[in-house]
Amino acid sequence: MHQLSRRGFFKGVGAAALAATAVPAAVAPARAAPTSFSKVVDLTHALPEDFPTFFGQPQLEIENVYKFDKDGFNLNIWHLNEHTGTHMDAPIHFSKDGQTADQVEVEKLVVPIVVIDVKAKAAEDPDYRLTPDDIAAWESANGDLPDGCCVAMNSGWDAHVKSDMFRNADGDGVMHFPGFHAEAADMMIKDRNVIGMAVDTLSLDHGASKDFKTHYTWLPSGRWGMECIANLDAIPATGATLVVGSPKIVGATGGPSRLIALI
Amino acid sequence: MHQLSRRGFFKGVGAAALAATAVPAAVAPARAAPTSFSKVVDLTHALPEDFPTFFGQPQLEIENVYKFDKDGFNLNIWHLNEHTGTHMDAPIHFSKDGQTADQVEVEKLVVPIVVIDVKAKAAEDPDYRLTPDDIAAWESANGDLPDGCCVAMNSGWDAHVKSDMFRNADGDGVMHFPGFHAEAADMMIKDRNVIGMAVDTLSLDHGASKDFKTHYTWLPSGRWGMECIANLDAIPATGATLVVGSPKIVGATGGPSRLIALI
Repeated sequence: MHQLSRRGFFKGVGAAALAATAVPAAVAPARAAPTSFSKVVDLTHALPEDFPTFFGQPQLEIENVYKFDKDGFNLNIWHLNEHTGTHMDAPIHFSKDGQTADQVEVEKLVVPIVVIDVKAKAAEDPDYRLTPDDIAAWESANGDLPDGCCVAMNSGWDAHVKSDMFRNADGDGVMHFPGFHAEAADMMIKDRNVIGMAVDTLSLDHGASKDFKTHYTWLPSGRWGMECIANLDAIPATGATLVVGSPKIVGATGGPSRLIALI
Repeated sequence: MHQLSRRGFFKGVGAAALAATAVPAAVAPARAAPTSFSKVVDLTHALPEDFPTFFGQPQLEIENVYKFDKDGFNLNIWHLNEHTGTHMDAPIHFSKDGQTADQVEVEKLVVPIVVIDVKAKAAEDPDYRLTPDDIAAWESANGDLPDGCCVAMNSGWDAHVKSDMFRNADGDGVMHFPGFHAEAADMMIKDRNVIGMAVDTLSLDHGASKDFKTHYTWLPSGRWGMECIANLDAIPATGATLVVGSPKIVGATGGPSRLIALI
Protein backbone atom coordinates (compact mmCIF):
# COMPACT_ATOMS: atom_id res chain seq x y z
CA MET A 1 0.00 0.00 0.00
CA HIS A 2 2.98 2.32 0.13
CA GLN A 3 2.39 3.22 -3.47
CA LEU A 4 -1.01 4.77 -3.93
CA SER A 5 -2.57 3.79 -7.21
CA ARG A 6 -2.22 6.75 -9.54
CA ARG A 7 -5.63 6.62 -11.03
CA GLY A 8 -5.29 9.85 -12.90
CA PHE A 9 -8.12 11.50 -11.01
CA PHE A 10 -6.44 14.83 -11.41
CA LYS A 11 -4.50 14.50 -14.63
CA GLY A 12 -4.43 17.66 -16.73
CA VAL A 13 -6.88 19.32 -14.45
CA GLY A 14 -6.03 22.83 -15.55
CA ALA A 15 -3.12 23.23 -13.18
CA ALA A 16 -1.17 25.41 -15.58
CA ALA A 17 -4.09 27.78 -16.14
CA LEU A 18 -4.67 28.24 -12.43
CA ALA A 19 -1.13 28.16 -11.09
CA ALA A 20 -0.48 31.68 -12.27
CA THR A 21 -3.15 33.18 -10.02
CA ALA A 22 -0.93 34.69 -7.36
CA VAL A 23 -3.29 36.07 -4.73
CA PRO A 24 -1.88 37.58 -1.54
CA ALA A 25 -2.30 35.20 1.38
CA ALA A 26 -5.07 35.77 3.87
CA VAL A 27 -4.06 37.84 6.84
CA ALA A 28 -4.90 36.80 10.37
CA PRO A 29 -6.33 39.82 12.18
CA ALA A 30 -4.81 40.96 15.45
CA ARG A 31 -6.91 39.84 18.40
CA ALA A 32 -8.94 42.91 19.33
CA ALA A 33 -10.33 41.56 22.59
CA PRO A 34 -9.63 38.57 24.80
CA THR A 35 -11.32 35.32 23.77
CA SER A 36 -13.09 33.39 26.49
CA PHE A 37 -14.23 29.79 26.78
CA SER A 38 -15.58 27.39 29.37
CA LYS A 39 -15.95 24.15 27.40
CA VAL A 40 -13.92 22.13 24.90
CA VAL A 41 -15.29 19.96 22.08
CA ASP A 42 -13.35 17.52 19.90
CA LEU A 43 -14.05 17.98 16.18
CA THR A 44 -11.71 15.14 15.15
CA HIS A 45 -12.60 11.67 13.90
CA ALA A 46 -10.69 8.76 15.40
CA LEU A 47 -8.42 7.48 12.61
CA PRO A 48 -8.20 3.70 12.22
CA GLU A 49 -6.41 1.99 9.31
CA ASP A 50 -9.69 1.50 7.46
CA PHE A 51 -10.88 5.12 7.61
CA PRO A 52 -12.64 5.94 4.30
CA THR A 53 -10.47 7.76 1.76
CA PHE A 54 -10.92 9.88 -1.33
CA PHE A 55 -8.97 7.40 -3.43
CA GLY A 56 -10.86 4.44 -2.02
CA GLN A 57 -7.73 2.60 -0.87
CA PRO A 58 -6.35 2.36 2.69
CA GLN A 59 -4.00 5.28 3.44
CA LEU A 60 -2.67 4.32 6.87
CA GLU A 61 -0.64 1.33 7.94
CA ILE A 62 0.54 1.01 11.52
CA GLU A 63 3.68 -1.05 11.90
CA ASN A 64 4.34 -2.20 15.44
CA VAL A 65 8.07 -2.31 16.13
CA TYR A 66 8.36 -2.52 19.94
CA LYS A 67 5.98 -4.40 22.24
CA PHE A 68 5.70 -3.99 25.99
CA ASP A 69 5.80 -7.68 26.90
CA LYS A 70 8.99 -8.25 24.96
CA ASP A 71 10.71 -4.85 24.92
CA GLY A 72 9.37 -3.06 27.99
CA PHE A 73 7.59 -0.41 25.93
CA ASN A 74 5.28 0.01 22.95
CA LEU A 75 6.12 1.93 19.76
CA ASN A 76 4.83 2.04 16.19
CA ILE A 77 5.84 3.44 12.83
CA TRP A 78 3.08 4.97 10.70
CA HIS A 79 2.97 4.76 6.94
CA LEU A 80 0.50 7.52 6.28
CA ASN A 81 -0.85 9.45 3.31
CA GLU A 82 -1.04 13.06 4.47
CA HIS A 83 -4.63 13.45 3.30
CA THR A 84 -6.26 10.94 5.60
CA GLY A 85 -8.80 11.27 8.38
CA THR A 86 -9.64 14.70 9.75
CA HIS A 87 -6.85 16.57 7.99
CA MET A 88 -5.54 19.86 6.68
CA ASP A 89 -5.07 20.83 3.04
CA ALA A 90 -2.18 23.31 3.09
CA PRO A 91 -1.98 25.86 0.24
CA ILE A 92 0.82 23.83 -1.42
CA HIS A 93 -1.54 20.85 -1.87
CA PHE A 94 -3.08 22.53 -4.94
CA SER A 95 -0.45 25.12 -5.85
CA LYS A 96 3.08 25.20 -7.14
CA ASP A 97 4.65 27.18 -4.36
CA GLY A 98 2.07 27.91 -1.66
CA GLN A 99 2.68 27.47 2.06
CA THR A 100 3.44 24.00 3.35
CA ALA A 101 1.66 22.87 6.53
CA ASP A 102 4.60 23.84 8.75
CA GLN A 103 4.64 27.36 7.28
CA VAL A 104 1.06 28.29 8.21
CA GLU A 105 1.37 30.95 10.91
CA VAL A 106 0.11 29.95 14.36
CA GLU A 107 -2.19 33.00 14.37
CA LYS A 108 -4.10 31.35 11.52
CA LEU A 109 -4.57 28.19 13.60
CA VAL A 110 -6.65 29.76 16.38
CA VAL A 111 -9.66 31.36 14.71
CA PRO A 112 -13.40 31.90 15.07
CA ILE A 113 -15.36 29.01 13.55
CA VAL A 114 -18.84 29.39 12.08
CA VAL A 115 -21.05 26.51 10.99
CA ILE A 116 -23.36 26.66 7.97
CA ASP A 117 -25.98 23.93 8.14
CA VAL A 118 -26.93 22.49 4.74
CA LYS A 119 -28.10 19.12 6.07
CA ALA A 120 -31.60 19.30 4.61
CA LYS A 121 -30.32 20.26 1.15
CA ALA A 122 -27.60 17.58 1.24
CA ALA A 123 -30.06 14.91 2.31
CA GLU A 124 -32.11 15.75 -0.77
CA ASP A 125 -29.16 16.16 -3.15
CA PRO A 126 -25.85 14.45 -2.29
CA ASP A 127 -24.16 16.54 -5.02
CA TYR A 128 -25.14 19.73 -3.19
CA ARG A 129 -22.66 22.60 -3.23
CA LEU A 130 -22.73 25.30 -0.57
CA THR A 131 -23.37 28.60 -2.40
CA PRO A 132 -22.91 32.34 -1.83
CA ASP A 133 -26.67 32.40 -1.10
CA ASP A 134 -26.13 29.99 1.80
CA ILE A 135 -23.49 32.34 3.20
CA ALA A 136 -25.78 35.35 2.75
CA ALA A 137 -28.63 33.51 4.49
CA TRP A 138 -26.30 32.57 7.37
CA GLU A 139 -25.29 36.24 7.72
CA SER A 140 -28.91 37.38 7.76
CA ALA A 141 -29.51 35.11 10.72
CA ASN A 142 -26.19 35.43 12.55
CA GLY A 143 -24.50 38.68 11.50
CA ASP A 144 -21.41 39.14 9.31
CA LEU A 145 -18.81 36.40 9.07
CA PRO A 146 -16.21 37.19 11.74
CA ASP A 147 -12.90 38.58 10.54
CA GLY A 148 -10.33 35.85 9.96
CA CYS A 149 -12.71 32.96 10.60
CA CYS A 150 -13.04 29.38 9.42
CA VAL A 151 -16.33 28.60 7.66
CA ALA A 152 -17.44 25.00 8.19
CA MET A 153 -20.03 23.18 6.11
CA ASN A 154 -22.27 20.90 8.17
CA SER A 155 -23.82 18.60 5.58
CA GLY A 156 -24.58 15.86 8.11
CA TRP A 157 -22.08 13.66 6.30
CA ASP A 158 -20.03 12.75 9.37
CA ALA A 159 -22.88 10.45 10.41
CA HIS A 160 -21.94 8.29 7.39
CA VAL A 161 -18.26 7.89 8.25
CA LYS A 162 -18.59 4.18 9.05
CA SER A 163 -20.59 3.26 5.96
CA ASP A 164 -20.14 3.30 2.17
CA MET A 165 -22.40 6.34 2.11
CA PHE A 166 -19.39 8.46 3.17
CA ARG A 167 -17.89 8.02 -0.32
CA ASN A 168 -21.23 7.19 -1.92
CA ALA A 169 -19.64 5.97 -5.15
CA ASP A 170 -21.92 5.01 -8.04
CA GLY A 171 -21.44 2.17 -10.50
CA ASP A 172 -18.88 4.22 -12.43
CA GLY A 173 -16.88 4.99 -9.31
CA VAL A 174 -18.04 8.62 -9.24
CA MET A 175 -18.58 9.79 -5.67
CA HIS A 176 -21.60 11.77 -4.54
CA PHE A 177 -21.18 13.91 -1.43
CA PRO A 178 -21.52 17.67 -0.82
CA GLY A 179 -18.84 20.34 -0.90
CA PHE A 180 -18.33 24.09 -1.34
CA HIS A 181 -19.24 25.75 -4.64
CA ALA A 182 -16.24 27.58 -6.14
CA GLU A 183 -18.35 30.76 -6.17
CA ALA A 184 -18.67 30.53 -2.38
CA ALA A 185 -14.88 30.15 -2.15
CA ASP A 186 -14.48 33.19 -4.37
CA MET A 187 -16.86 35.24 -2.20
CA MET A 188 -15.03 34.25 1.00
CA ILE A 189 -11.73 35.35 -0.55
CA LYS A 190 -12.78 38.59 -2.23
CA ASP A 191 -15.71 39.91 -0.23
CA ARG A 192 -14.95 38.57 3.24
CA ASN A 193 -11.80 37.81 5.24
CA VAL A 194 -12.07 34.06 5.72
CA ILE A 195 -8.93 32.06 6.54
CA GLY A 196 -10.12 28.45 6.67
CA MET A 197 -12.69 26.30 4.87
CA ALA A 198 -13.84 23.09 6.56
CA VAL A 199 -16.05 20.28 5.27
CA ASP A 200 -17.45 17.18 6.98
CA THR A 201 -16.86 15.24 3.74
CA LEU A 202 -13.81 13.87 1.93
CA SER A 203 -13.21 16.94 -0.23
CA LEU A 204 -13.63 20.72 -0.33
CA ASP A 205 -15.17 20.11 -3.75
CA HIS A 206 -18.33 17.99 -4.04
CA GLY A 207 -17.56 14.34 -4.72
CA ALA A 208 -18.61 14.38 -8.37
CA SER A 209 -16.36 17.32 -9.26
CA LYS A 210 -14.21 16.78 -12.32
CA ASP A 211 -12.24 20.02 -12.17
CA PHE A 212 -11.56 20.56 -8.42
CA LYS A 213 -12.40 24.17 -8.96
CA THR A 214 -12.99 24.90 -5.29
CA HIS A 215 -9.56 23.49 -4.37
CA TYR A 216 -7.93 25.52 -7.16
CA THR A 217 -9.77 28.68 -6.12
CA TRP A 218 -9.18 28.38 -2.40
CA LEU A 219 -5.77 26.87 -1.69
CA PRO A 220 -3.56 28.92 -4.07
CA SER A 221 -4.98 32.05 -2.42
CA GLY A 222 -2.94 31.21 0.69
CA ARG A 223 -5.79 29.77 2.76
CA TRP A 224 -6.11 26.37 4.38
CA GLY A 225 -8.78 23.73 4.05
CA MET A 226 -9.89 21.02 6.47
CA GLU A 227 -11.58 17.82 5.35
CA CYS A 228 -13.50 15.21 7.35
CA ILE A 229 -14.20 17.53 10.28
CA ALA A 230 -16.41 15.79 12.86
CA ASN A 231 -19.06 16.62 15.42
CA LEU A 232 -20.18 20.01 14.08
CA ASP A 233 -23.62 19.49 15.65
CA ALA A 234 -21.94 19.98 19.03
CA ILE A 235 -20.90 23.59 18.44
CA PRO A 236 -23.02 26.70 17.81
CA ALA A 237 -23.48 28.43 14.44
CA THR A 238 -21.20 31.19 15.70
CA GLY A 239 -19.21 32.07 18.83
CA ALA A 240 -16.81 29.12 19.08
CA THR A 241 -13.04 29.27 18.55
CA LEU A 242 -11.24 26.58 16.58
CA VAL A 243 -7.73 25.46 17.52
CA VAL A 244 -6.12 23.64 14.59
CA GLY A 245 -3.57 21.09 15.76
CA SER A 246 -2.04 20.65 12.32
CA PRO A 247 1.30 18.93 11.73
CA LYS A 248 4.52 20.96 11.67
CA ILE A 249 6.29 18.48 9.43
CA VAL A 250 8.58 20.38 7.06
CA GLY A 251 7.29 20.26 3.50
CA ALA A 252 3.96 18.62 4.36
CA THR A 253 1.09 19.36 1.98
CA GLY A 254 -1.30 18.96 4.91
CA GLY A 255 -1.87 16.14 7.32
CA PRO A 256 -4.03 14.63 10.04
CA SER A 257 -4.93 17.38 12.49
CA ARG A 258 -6.45 17.54 15.95
CA LEU A 259 -9.31 20.00 15.83
CA ILE A 260 -10.50 21.34 19.17
CA ALA A 261 -13.32 23.84 19.57
CA LEU A 262 -13.38 26.21 22.55
CA ILE A 263 -16.85 27.41 23.48
CA MET B 1 15.07 3.07 7.73
CA HIS B 2 11.65 1.46 8.15
CA GLN B 3 13.14 -0.95 10.61
CA LEU B 4 14.52 0.89 13.60
CA SER B 5 17.64 -0.71 14.91
CA ARG B 6 16.68 -2.62 18.02
CA ARG B 7 19.58 -1.64 20.15
CA GLY B 8 18.17 -3.13 23.31
CA PHE B 9 18.14 0.21 25.11
CA PHE B 10 15.18 -0.95 27.12
CA LYS B 11 15.65 -4.69 27.36
CA GLY B 12 14.55 -6.16 30.68
CA VAL B 13 14.06 -2.75 32.14
CA GLY B 14 11.89 -3.92 34.96
CA ALA B 15 8.68 -3.82 32.99
CA ALA B 16 7.20 -6.78 34.80
CA ALA B 17 7.85 -5.29 38.21
CA LEU B 18 6.28 -1.99 37.29
CA ALA B 19 3.43 -3.13 35.07
CA ALA B 20 1.39 -4.28 38.05
CA THR B 21 1.12 -0.78 39.51
CA ALA B 22 -2.47 -0.01 38.55
CA VAL B 23 -2.98 3.60 39.58
CA PRO B 24 -6.30 5.29 38.77
CA ALA B 25 -5.93 7.65 35.84
CA ALA B 26 -5.65 11.36 36.48
CA VAL B 27 -8.95 13.16 36.37
CA ALA B 28 -9.41 16.38 34.43
CA PRO B 29 -11.18 18.85 36.70
CA ALA B 30 -14.37 20.52 35.54
CA ARG B 31 -13.70 24.08 34.36
CA ALA B 32 -14.69 26.26 37.30
CA ALA B 33 -14.50 29.58 35.47
CA PRO B 34 -14.12 30.70 31.86
CA THR B 35 -10.57 30.75 30.52
CA SER B 36 -9.50 33.88 28.69
CA PHE B 37 -6.67 34.60 26.27
CA SER B 38 -5.51 37.32 23.93
CA LYS B 39 -2.35 35.83 22.39
CA VAL B 40 -1.25 32.50 20.91
CA VAL B 41 2.26 31.02 21.04
CA ASP B 42 3.54 27.98 19.15
CA LEU B 43 5.41 25.53 21.41
CA THR B 44 6.16 23.11 18.54
CA HIS B 45 9.46 22.48 16.75
CA ALA B 46 9.36 22.30 12.97
CA LEU B 47 9.99 18.65 12.11
CA PRO B 48 12.38 17.98 9.21
CA GLU B 49 13.60 14.49 8.29
CA ASP B 50 16.85 15.04 10.19
CA PHE B 51 15.30 16.12 13.50
CA PRO B 52 17.44 14.67 16.34
CA THR B 53 16.09 11.44 17.82
CA PHE B 54 16.49 9.43 20.99
CA PHE B 55 17.73 6.42 19.05
CA GLY B 56 20.14 8.51 16.99
CA GLN B 57 18.76 7.38 13.63
CA PRO B 58 16.38 9.29 11.33
CA GLN B 59 12.74 8.58 12.22
CA LEU B 60 10.91 10.38 9.42
CA GLU B 61 10.99 9.78 5.70
CA ILE B 62 8.80 11.84 3.40
CA GLU B 63 7.91 10.06 0.17
CA ASN B 64 6.57 12.38 -2.51
CA VAL B 65 3.94 10.59 -4.60
CA TYR B 66 2.13 13.37 -6.50
CA LYS B 67 3.76 16.53 -7.85
CA PHE B 68 1.98 19.69 -8.98
CA ASP B 69 3.80 20.11 -12.28
CA LYS B 70 2.99 16.59 -13.38
CA ASP B 71 -0.18 15.69 -11.51
CA GLY B 72 -1.87 19.02 -10.78
CA PHE B 73 -1.43 18.66 -7.01
CA ASN B 74 1.15 17.78 -4.37
CA LEU B 75 0.88 14.88 -1.92
CA ASN B 76 3.29 12.89 0.27
CA ILE B 77 3.32 9.72 2.32
CA TRP B 78 5.09 9.86 5.68
CA HIS B 79 7.02 6.98 7.15
CA LEU B 80 7.19 8.14 10.73
CA ASN B 81 8.20 6.77 14.11
CA GLU B 82 5.54 8.00 16.53
CA HIS B 83 8.13 9.33 18.97
CA THR B 84 9.68 12.00 16.78
CA GLY B 85 9.81 15.79 17.03
CA THR B 86 7.59 17.57 19.53
CA HIS B 87 5.47 14.57 20.45
CA MET B 88 3.19 12.92 22.97
CA ASP B 89 3.95 9.84 25.05
CA ALA B 90 0.55 8.24 25.65
CA PRO B 91 0.16 6.03 28.76
CA ILE B 92 0.39 2.87 26.58
CA HIS B 93 3.94 3.82 25.52
CA PHE B 94 5.30 2.47 28.83
CA SER B 95 2.45 0.29 30.05
CA LYS B 96 0.74 -2.92 29.03
CA ASP B 97 -2.79 -1.61 28.70
CA GLY B 98 -2.82 2.14 29.30
CA GLN B 99 -4.63 4.65 27.11
CA THR B 100 -3.56 4.99 23.50
CA ALA B 101 -3.20 8.52 22.10
CA ASP B 102 -6.68 8.49 20.57
CA GLN B 103 -8.22 7.52 23.91
CA VAL B 104 -6.94 10.50 25.90
CA GLU B 105 -10.04 12.57 26.71
CA VAL B 106 -10.19 16.00 25.06
CA GLU B 107 -10.63 17.61 28.50
CA LYS B 108 -7.06 16.47 29.28
CA LEU B 109 -5.77 18.21 26.15
CA VAL B 110 -6.70 21.76 27.16
CA VAL B 111 -5.00 22.42 30.48
CA PRO B 112 -3.12 25.06 32.47
CA ILE B 113 0.62 24.91 31.75
CA VAL B 114 3.27 25.94 34.26
CA VAL B 115 6.97 26.29 33.48
CA ILE B 116 9.72 25.37 35.92
CA ASP B 117 13.00 26.98 34.92
CA VAL B 118 16.07 24.83 35.64
CA LYS B 119 18.29 26.38 32.99
CA ALA B 120 21.07 27.42 35.34
CA LYS B 121 21.26 23.99 36.97
CA ALA B 122 21.14 22.21 33.60
CA ALA B 123 23.89 24.42 32.17
CA GLU B 124 26.10 23.33 35.07
CA ASP B 125 25.05 19.68 35.03
CA PRO B 126 23.58 18.21 31.82
CA ASP B 127 22.48 15.14 33.82
CA TYR B 128 20.30 17.36 36.01
CA ARG B 129 16.96 15.96 37.14
CA LEU B 130 14.10 18.24 38.17
CA THR B 131 13.30 17.37 41.81
CA PRO B 132 10.43 17.75 44.29
CA ASP B 133 12.45 20.64 45.75
CA ASP B 134 12.27 22.45 42.40
CA ILE B 135 8.49 22.05 42.44
CA ALA B 136 8.28 23.30 46.04
CA ALA B 137 10.44 26.32 45.19
CA TRP B 138 8.22 27.08 42.16
CA GLU B 139 5.15 26.92 44.41
CA SER B 140 6.71 29.26 46.95
CA ALA B 141 7.15 31.82 44.21
CA ASN B 142 3.99 31.22 42.16
CA GLY B 143 1.40 29.51 44.36
CA ASP B 144 0.12 25.93 44.24
CA LEU B 145 0.31 23.98 41.01
CA PRO B 146 -3.07 24.49 39.31
CA ASP B 147 -5.49 21.58 39.39
CA GLY B 148 -5.18 19.37 36.31
CA CYS B 149 -2.16 21.18 34.88
CA CYS B 150 0.81 20.26 32.73
CA VAL B 151 4.20 20.89 34.35
CA ALA B 152 6.89 21.79 31.81
CA MET B 153 10.63 21.66 32.45
CA ASN B 154 12.52 24.53 30.81
CA SER B 155 16.11 23.34 30.81
CA GLY B 156 17.14 25.63 27.96
CA TRP B 157 17.74 22.54 25.85
CA ASP B 158 15.60 23.61 22.91
CA ALA B 159 18.34 26.05 21.98
CA HIS B 160 20.47 22.99 21.13
CA VAL B 161 17.98 21.34 18.76
CA LYS B 162 20.13 21.97 15.68
CA SER B 163 23.38 20.73 17.19
CA ASP B 164 24.81 17.50 18.59
CA MET B 165 24.37 19.03 22.02
CA PHE B 166 20.67 18.12 21.87
CA ARG B 167 21.58 14.42 22.29
CA ASN B 168 24.96 15.20 23.86
CA ALA B 169 26.22 11.62 23.54
CA ASP B 170 29.58 10.74 25.06
CA GLY B 171 32.18 8.33 23.65
CA ASP B 172 30.16 5.35 24.90
CA GLY B 173 26.97 6.61 23.27
CA VAL B 174 25.44 7.59 26.61
CA MET B 175 23.41 10.78 26.26
CA HIS B 176 23.58 13.66 28.71
CA PHE B 177 20.55 15.94 28.90
CA PRO B 178 18.17 16.85 31.74
CA GLY B 179 14.84 15.29 32.64
CA PHE B 180 12.39 14.83 35.52
CA HIS B 181 13.46 12.91 38.62
CA ALA B 182 11.12 9.99 39.31
CA GLU B 183 10.50 11.44 42.78
CA ALA B 184 9.11 14.58 41.16
CA ALA B 185 6.81 12.40 39.04
CA ASP B 186 5.73 10.60 42.17
CA MET B 187 4.97 13.88 43.95
CA MET B 188 2.94 15.19 40.99
CA ILE B 189 0.86 11.99 40.99
CA LYS B 190 0.32 11.52 44.72
CA ASP B 191 0.44 14.97 46.26
CA ARG B 192 -0.81 17.14 43.40
CA ASN B 193 -3.28 16.69 40.52
CA VAL B 194 -1.00 17.04 37.50
CA ILE B 195 -2.15 15.60 34.15
CA GLY B 196 0.78 16.24 31.83
CA MET B 197 4.59 16.30 32.05
CA ALA B 198 6.53 18.16 29.37
CA VAL B 199 10.27 18.37 28.71
CA ASP B 200 12.30 20.39 26.20
CA THR B 201 14.61 17.38 25.77
CA LEU B 202 14.33 13.99 24.07
CA SER B 203 13.06 12.11 27.11
CA LEU B 204 11.01 12.51 30.30
CA ASP B 205 13.96 10.76 31.97
CA HIS B 206 17.39 12.37 31.87
CA GLY B 207 19.51 11.15 28.96
CA ALA B 208 21.83 8.96 31.02
CA SER B 209 18.98 7.03 32.66
CA LYS B 210 19.35 3.27 32.56
CA ASP B 211 16.02 2.36 34.11
CA PHE B 212 13.54 4.90 32.63
CA LYS B 213 12.08 5.20 36.09
CA THR B 214 10.30 8.48 35.36
CA HIS B 215 8.58 6.99 32.31
CA TYR B 216 7.56 3.91 34.34
CA THR B 217 6.29 6.04 37.21
CA TRP B 218 4.40 8.57 35.14
CA LEU B 219 2.83 6.91 32.09
CA PRO B 220 1.26 3.80 33.69
CA SER B 221 -0.52 6.16 36.11
CA GLY B 222 -2.74 7.27 33.20
CA ARG B 223 -1.00 10.57 32.54
CA TRP B 224 0.57 11.85 29.32
CA GLY B 225 4.06 13.09 28.58
CA MET B 226 5.31 15.53 25.97
CA GLU B 227 8.90 15.51 24.70
CA CYS B 228 10.82 18.12 22.68
CA ILE B 229 8.50 20.97 23.60
CA ALA B 230 9.80 24.28 22.17
CA ASN B 231 9.79 27.96 22.95
CA LEU B 232 9.02 27.80 26.69
CA ASP B 233 10.82 31.14 27.19
CA ALA B 234 7.88 32.77 25.39
CA ILE B 235 5.25 31.86 27.99
CA PRO B 236 4.96 32.86 31.65
CA ALA B 237 5.73 30.61 34.65
CA THR B 238 2.00 30.33 35.21
CA GLY B 239 -1.25 31.60 33.69
CA ALA B 240 -1.07 30.15 30.18
CA THR B 241 -3.31 27.40 28.79
CA LEU B 242 -1.89 24.59 26.68
CA VAL B 243 -3.86 23.08 23.80
CA VAL B 244 -2.42 19.69 22.87
CA GLY B 245 -3.00 18.87 19.21
CA SER B 246 -2.11 15.21 19.61
CA PRO B 247 -2.91 12.59 17.00
CA LYS B 248 -6.19 10.65 17.14
CA ILE B 249 -4.75 7.65 15.32
CA VAL B 250 -6.30 4.50 16.76
CA GLY B 251 -3.77 2.49 18.75
CA ALA B 252 -1.03 5.14 18.61
CA THR B 253 1.44 5.11 21.52
CA GLY B 254 1.85 8.86 21.07
CA GLY B 255 2.87 10.94 18.12
CA PRO B 256 3.92 14.32 16.77
CA SER B 257 1.67 16.96 18.31
CA ARG B 258 0.95 20.60 17.66
CA LEU B 259 1.31 22.44 20.96
CA ILE B 260 -0.30 25.86 21.14
CA ALA B 261 -0.25 28.06 24.24
CA LEU B 262 -3.06 30.55 24.85
CA ILE B 263 -2.02 33.50 27.00
